Amino acid sequence: MSRSSLLAVTTTALFLSVAPRSAVSAVPTPVSVMPLPHSVVAAEGRLPITAKLTVALRGHDDARLRAGLARALRRAEERTGLTFARTPQAAYVISGDSSAATLVIECGAAAAAVPVLGEDESYTLAITPSQAVLRAPTVHGVLHGLETTLQLLQGDAGGWFLPAMRIEDRPRFPWRGLMLDVCRHWQPMEVVKRTLDGMALAKLNVLHLHLTEDQGFRIESKSFPRLHEMGSDGLYFTQEQMREIIAYAAERCIRVVPEFDIPGHATSWLVGHPEIGSAPGPYVIERKWGIFDPVLDPTNPRTYEILDGFLTEMAALFPDPYLHIGGDENNGVHWSANAKIQQYIRDHDLKDLHGLHTHFNNRVHAILARNGKRLVGWDEILHPDLASGSVVHSWRGPDGIAAATALGFATILSNGYYIDLSHPTVDHYLNDPIPPGSKLTEAQQKLVLGGEATMWAEWVTPETIDSRLWPRTAAIAERLWSRQDVRDVDDMYRRLGYVSRRLEEAGMRHLSYIDPALRRLAGDGASAEDLVLLREFVDLLEPVKVYQRGRHQPDATQHTPLTGLVDCTRPDSRAARGFAAQVDLYLRNPKAPAVAETLSAQLKQWDAMARRLSDGLVKRSPRLREAEPLVQALGAACGAGRDAIEILTHGTKPPARWREAQLSALERAGKPFAAVEFPIMPAIRALVEAAAQP
Amino acid sequence: MSRSSLLAVTTTALFLSVAPRSAVSAVPTPVSVMPLPHSVVAAEGRLPITAKLTVALRGHDDARLRAGLARALRRAEERTGLTFARTPQAAYVISGDSSAATLVIECGAAAAAVPVLGEDESYTLAITPSQAVLRAPTVHGVLHGLETTLQLLQGDAGGWFLPAMRIEDRPRFPWRGLMLDVCRHWQPMEVVKRTLDGMALAKLNVLHLHLTEDQGFRIESKSFPRLHEMGSDGLYFTQEQMREIIAYAAERCIRVVPEFDIPGHATSWLVGHPEIGSAPGPYVIERKWGIFDPVLDPTNPRTYEILDGFLTEMAALFPDPYLHIGGDENNGVHWSANAKIQQYIRDHDLKDLHGLHTHFNNRVHAILARNGKRLVGWDEILHPDLASGSVVHSWRGPDGIAAATALGFATILSNGYYIDLSHPTVDHYLNDPIPPGSKLTEAQQKLVLGGEATMWAEWVTPETIDSRLWPRTAAIAERLWSRQDVRDVDDMYRRLGYVSRRLEEAGMRHLSYIDPALRRLAGDGASAEDLVLLREFVDLLEPVKVYQRGRHQPDATQHTPLTGLVDCTRPDSRAARGFAAQVDLYLRNPKAPAVAETLSAQLKQWDAMARRLSDGLVKRSPRLREAEPLVQALGAACGAGRDAIEILTHGTKPPARWREAQLSALERAGKPFAAVEFPIMPAIRALVEAAAQP
Repeated sequence: MSRSSLLAVTTTALFLSVAPRSAVSAVPTPVSVMPLPHSVVAAEGRLPITAKLTVALRGHDDARLRAGLARALRRAEERTGLTFARTPQAAYVISGDSSAATLVIECGAAAAAVPVLGEDESYTLAITPSQAVLRAPTVHGVLHGLETTLQLLQGDAGGWFLPAMRIEDRPRFPWRGLMLDVCRHWQPMEVVKRTLDGMALAKLNVLHLHLTEDQGFRIESKSFPRLHEMGSDGLYFTQEQMREIIAYAAERCIRVVPEFDIPGHATSWLVGHPEIGSAPGPYVIERKWGIFDPVLDPTNPRTYEILDGFLTEMAALFPDPYLHIGGDENNGVHWSANAKIQQYIRDHDLKDLHGLHTHFNNRVHAILARNGKRLVGWDEILHPDLASGSVVHSWRGPDGIAAATALGFATILSNGYYIDLSHPTVDHYLNDPIPPGSKLTEAQQKLVLGGEATMWAEWVTPETIDSRLWPRTAAIAERLWSRQDVRDVDDMYRRLGYVSRRLEEAGMRHLSYIDPALRRLAGDGASAEDLVLLREFVDLLEPVKVYQRGRHQPDATQHTPLTGLVDCTRPDSRAARGFAAQVDLYLRNPKAPAVAETLSAQLKQWDAMARRLSDGLVKRSPRLREAEPLVQALGAACGAGRDAIEILTHGTKPPARWREAQLSALERAGKPFAAVEFPIMPAIRALVEAAAQP
Repeated sequence: MSRSSLLAVTTTALFLSVAPRSAVSAVPTPVSVMPLPHSVVAAEGRLPITAKLTVALRGHDDARLRAGLARALRRAEERTGLTFARTPQAAYVISGDSSAATLVIECGAAAAAVPVLGEDESYTLAITPSQAVLRAPTVHGVLHGLETTLQLLQGDAGGWFLPAMRIEDRPRFPWRGLMLDVCRHWQPMEVVKRTLDGMALAKLNVLHLHLTEDQGFRIESKSFPRLHEMGSDGLYFTQEQMREIIAYAAERCIRVVPEFDIPGHATSWLVGHPEIGSAPGPYVIERKWGIFDPVLDPTNPRTYEILDGFLTEMAALFPDPYLHIGGDENNGVHWSANAKIQQYIRDHDLKDLHGLHTHFNNRVHAILARNGKRLVGWDEILHPDLASGSVVHSWRGPDGIAAATALGFATILSNGYYIDLSHPTVDHYLNDPIPPGSKLTEAQQKLVLGGEATMWAEWVTPETIDSRLWPRTAAIAERLWSRQDVRDVDDMYRRLGYVSRRLEEAGMRHLSYIDPALRRLAGDGASAEDLVLLREFVDLLEPVKVYQRGRHQPDATQHTPLTGLVDCTRPDSRAARGFAAQVDLYLRNPKAPAVAETLSAQLKQWDAMARRLSDGLVKRSPRLREAEPLVQALGAACGAGRDAIEILTHGTKPPARWREAQLSALERAGKPFAAVEFPIMPAIRALVEAAAQP
């Protein structure tokens, strides 16, 4: 890479040259920003960041910009240990002299007071060895640019600095969201606020709050207080708290889109208002997970009376013009069993349950339209008769977007972004609302607004939720923000490691919750060494994927404590990923003694760890008895892997039926147990298969 | 210990015999409860705790009791992973059949709705292999008994159980408090609430909130809103939030005593109301730490107008009959320099500044008396003319209690309980309001209400405060709750380890904050191995004691980020304590090869750790450059220690001037640096001294 000229970089694996200084490495520093900016042009040198940092504002200036700047500077202080200058009123000093300032912010205009879809979010950031200049048409771009700047801030033996470069950045999609289910397990204010901080860091701009469910009605209604009073166990947001959330989000230019899931998933509505159910009731809050029969009665005038009152109230509370009415997974059982409802279908020529559902949606659409709101709903609302202007939220399969846009509906993608299902990051990352080679017409593509990661809360508590949210959601954020051709998976994982640390610094607990959870699991008898072993062990495990957890814990309810082994494991084990990469490398040249030794030593270490756990902590701790088959499985798999390496290294022929015996042992070892599984098993299987090849 | 009969245990080192079961150890289980109950009678067997647990209530029953029971059962579920039975309304099932219930709670009466000083807090807990019965005169005792039960709950390979025993328990002192300074560094709702949870666990019953200071006015005043609006940077509790805190505390039978520190430490009052200062002003919020000149003008009628309005408002907000007016550290500078004030002293024959201060206190006393409140103040309020009925809060020295009670004033002890000063736990633990052999008369002893740990907040943030609060405050709680003769330091430390885990489970972050803080300090270049070394290193360090930190960081202000090395270290290093105990053991028999080897290996490991840090992370991370002299010092000290062991083991004579050279090197190595120090140095010095003996 040339060090004497500027270099335009258009690939994703960016390496910037850094001018050498005393005791400073001359090795190029890779850009570690996520989402990756639209374009980055590397330059030479670095802008030192010291306690003498000064900031100048040019152009538009307002309270939101200053508050965002203050948050950014405080985070920089906490990372660097530097203290920047302040006024006696404790505000950071804004210099009048922009020519001498370290950071110049040049803002064109205010952003919308309540953020709106499609705002200009662009910014440019030019860093030279003497100054950083952040320019944006509105405050929204300034906030994004500050997040990028914070991600670029780095230190080495030469001190803290921003590497010189020029960034031009803007989002690919205008709707980049995260759906948070606060119903299945209640997620209080504190979780919502820190999630908003994480979203701002990842340049997400929509918080979709899933506020009503079978298992809980989580928003105060002043017009129909029995809804939250009887449907929530007292765990709900007051309207005052919701206004606080909306304001907190708006400070970060994040929209808040509420969802009230109707007509299905509505048990909690019916606890206080059984009269609008499709079956006689009474109803109690649902405590288990799944699809249940209770559903609003779309033929009952009282249903629309309550919906009109409630939605009008919510339309006033939530300023965003979009309002999500759910509409998913109505199993039709109560509608089919109700003669009056069946008669209604015939009387109104609605043909079938889907026709009735559309009839219901269009009546709700009319209520929303009267309140100036656009209707959003999950896939199931799609129907040729659905009122135009509605937005279809695609979750069920890869064809939802094509189907919705073919009928002219705007759409948002969540299929493939279900972060509660514990898939590896790469699966979400390569899932594109408009993938390369998409067959959507240009008109259809224009209807694709973006996407949303969905955090359903059957299996998370405020303690564990961050481990499912982060850092994987940052990779989804990149998919929605960065260019379509940004698809280098290795570089994504490299940058994911950095952004994970930045998220931790911004208050996320996806890394820090584990050790306390392991101490609880291990119990009082555990030594420091036991805990190191246990940590090593859970870092090799992953929660089971998709909807398997419910099969492992069929009796689980909303009350089951989520403090078990599976709750200490996280999706996308980094240790397993590293091991798989090593095995890949090795199998390309199995005679390479260095890689063979590394792999064999690794397997030996895991084997020893499993043995020590098996003889120690797993025997003693009542919480870890369920780990017994798992430590056995790990030991067996490590043995098979080491045998395979031995065979491959020496080119010997394995004994008769060795392959079958090993694969069958690995199959047993690879079976999920206690809702966890070992992601290293495919790589060990690959070793065995390679060793067994003639 | 007899296994065939009940055994009355009156010493503090309690070991209970546990009946052996399959795969269950027959080794006696020590009681790990803190504070240690008044009396414990061990019995044989264990009461199994399973998901089939049932609870029966006998006698009085109310919402506070049920809420406390629900919190306790939820904590038990989270620890054990068990799910106890619930009603469809999600309440735990209360059985009508007390003969078959696992836990029977027999409560005599409600506790005071607003907790009051001197309530009956006693309870008895009888655990047999078939049932646990918790009896208390009021709900207050029930809540304490539930905390004891939770601390007794334990698991082994045989499952979860309560060991059979009989406990009779009651507090020694009625006023067992924790003072929380929310002014120097703002501590939000979340910190206050989790601190109340920790206090309940440790059976503390007074939260003393230090709400006004030079650096911040932290409570909303509706009568004089300029106080909080101009004196707080927007960081204060609204009255609604304060009512929420008071209610949260009352649920746990904890009193909330507010402090408004006057007439000194009052800069923040004067920002909005300079007219009541003793110098002309204007005033700005103080950002540094120390004793400052600004002080209310006790000769100005407007001062009493504002105090009357404000204190009357606060008297209505805070239901507790005690109200703390501070009164400490008025340096007299502005009073002495103000001619009008000097004239006032002469006109009113007040003799001196102390006389004027007492005159002021008595006028404030009259305001409080009119509002039904008793005045509490720090040592400095003590004066023969101080209005009777006032309470003196002793902080300055060991004689404060004697002086106050000699004048007939009730008193609370905080001298010796300054947990912000990073002293080892033992110093606080052996500090007794009425120590064995006290010379106080019986009448004086009756005036000693108890004590309070004091958490001043110059050097803590919401991130780090728990590490200064816990677990040491639990040992102070034991001093105030348990019998005077409970003074076994080794057993205290043993039990402190358990209660520390229980506090973590109840939400305290004194253990979990460290690794994230170290990751931030180490920076992105740090490997997992680097972080293990760094953790080992900081576990050997302690923050400097008493007021030394201000000398190490003389430029620090309220804005200095507290994310440095010192903020990752904690008082009372467990590693250092363990090492010192080993050295003690060794020096009693220096020829013992096993201990010598252990010690030498330990020193060698620390030396290697220091070298690896010095060559690695400390060179690379800009945040860790300050650790360079410390890793060097550790290496040098470990070398001296290993030499000493070598000499002692082989009985050789050290070279000439070896002792002087080593001690001088150790003195250099033992010097605090970057506000931290090595508590292992005295033990290494002891090794060197022993080796140098002829």
